[in-house]
Amino acid sequence: MTADDRGLLLGDGLFETVLVRQRHACLWAWHRARLELGLQRLGFPAQDPEWLRGEIEAAAGPGERLVRLTLTRGRGPRGYAPPAEPAVTRLVSAGPEMSRPDPAGATPLRIGFSTIPASVNPALGGIKHLGRLDNVLARMHWREGEDEAILRDAAGRITCATQGNLWLREGTHLVTPPVDEAGIAGTRRAWVLEKAEEFGVSTEVAWPTYERLQAADGLYVSNARLGLAAGVLIGGGAARTEPAALQALRRALHEAD
Amino acid sequence: MTADDRGLLLGDGLFETVLVRQRHACLWAWHRARLELGLQRLGFPAQDPEWLRGEIEAAAGPGERLVRLTLTRGRGPRGYAPPAEPAVTRLVSAGPEMSRPDPAGATPLRIGFSTIPASVNPALGGIKHLGRLDNVLARMHWREGEDEAILRDAAGRITCATQGNLWLREGTHLVTPPVDEAGIAGTRRAWVLEKAEEFGVSTEVAWPTYERLQAADGLYVSNARLGLAAGVLIGGGAARTEPAALQALRRALHEAD
Repeated sequence: MTADDRGLLLGDGLFETVLVRQRHACLWAWHRARLELGLQRLGFPAQDPEWLRGEIEAAAGPGERLVRLTLTRGRGPRGYAPPAEPAVTRLVSAGPEMSRPDPAGATPLRIGFSTIPASVNPALGGIKHLGRLDNVLARMHWREGEDEAILRDAAGRITCATQGNLWLREGTHLVTPPVDEAGIAGTRRAWVLEKAEEFGVSTEVAWPTYERLQAADGLYVSNARLGLAAGVLIGGGAARTEPAALQALRRALHEAD
Repeated sequence: MTADDRGLLLGDGLFETVLVRQRHACLWAWHRARLELGLQRLGFPAQDPEWLRGEIEAAAGPGERLVRLTLTRGRGPRGYAPPAEPAVTRLVSAGPEMSRPDPAGATPLRIGFSTIPASVNPALGGIKHLGRLDNVLARMHWREGEDEAILRDAAGRITCATQGNLWLREGTHLVTPPVDEAGIAGTRRAWVLEKAEEFGVSTEVAWPTYERLQAADGLYVSNARLGLAAGVLIGGGAARTEPAALQALRRALHEAD
């Protein structure tokens, strides 16, 4: 990397963290959709997404790995104004081989509340841009015993988890906050919203009240590594028995290509 | 730069853009104060600010230049959690020799309204962190004829200018928006708030209403390059004659060490 890259100097870029299984980029259609939205929002020159997919799959070794693709607006002169014809910087890096927690057997995440607010900006909401200080600070401020923490925005709205999207379960109904003002439009979130009905699970995009959060039958956090991982609110009641429909949904996401 | 630097991957860092005149870092006390606040907010290991000042001054050539100091949390493993003992990355780069616009003679900036909102996050408000997409996008979306554009937050509050802090003038009274929820606590802003009274100019930190903005006797934008530069709202009335007190204040800031 050069020291005048706008990704470093201004956070002027995007990334994707892709689960690659046996050199196959899982849920690529959802990654591609989010990446294209981000490129459009930032006004980047056109990229060939299938070529990028090839780079991601080529970087991965055997087994299961997370591969990070980073795209920046490349080098530029000083100041906020980008060059007229930016040369996009592409970085692809593969993590170590890993085994993801089995959705049925994993210990529920213990979820608290972060004191760090989620940034609100409708121009940036949903896209996975490089400015991730909300998440870094929230992660640093997890309290003893927390495996996750919920971020609220400055208006107090329950927005997301530190490392993924947040979900409430009410019977076989799932509720997740909107991502058009804050947070990231997760690929697993998009998959669940699209597929849940096939499993007899209904979904709703809404900012949950505290009362609704406290009364939920269970919580989940979704990201590329965890899939849709179960959690419990610290100080809340124990998670109630999970309906078979949810178990089947989580298993299908775990195995989804 | 290494490709696993957290400044690049996560925007995990801070910067300062320092005016250096004849190898002297101007308004260093204000830069130092903001930098120390940022380091504390991000939980960075302690830095020696006077050593950093020496690096900044050593990087500058003769004449007047802007020198950028960038500090990142350095390299790290994947994920949001920082290493327990980060090794901070320091970058210092000097711009070309330049001549700053004389405050009395400069053409007023033509100021419009940006369609890009300013991000709201009380944990990040005021500090000069690396996630500057608000400013990049606002700069990209300036309309034909604009030299500056005002950013509002998602709640519609008038927050800042694209390239600096915003000021309204009402007689010899200056009004600037707060920076504890959004925007950057500019060094020139801090200097004006501290020194204005010596020039017979009063100051107020408040979110101005649209009515107050439209009715102002003049606008200003402040940053290290411009000092306190005069501007006019596009479609608003012409700037009224500037009182001598304001002229003296702007001259003093232009020459301040």
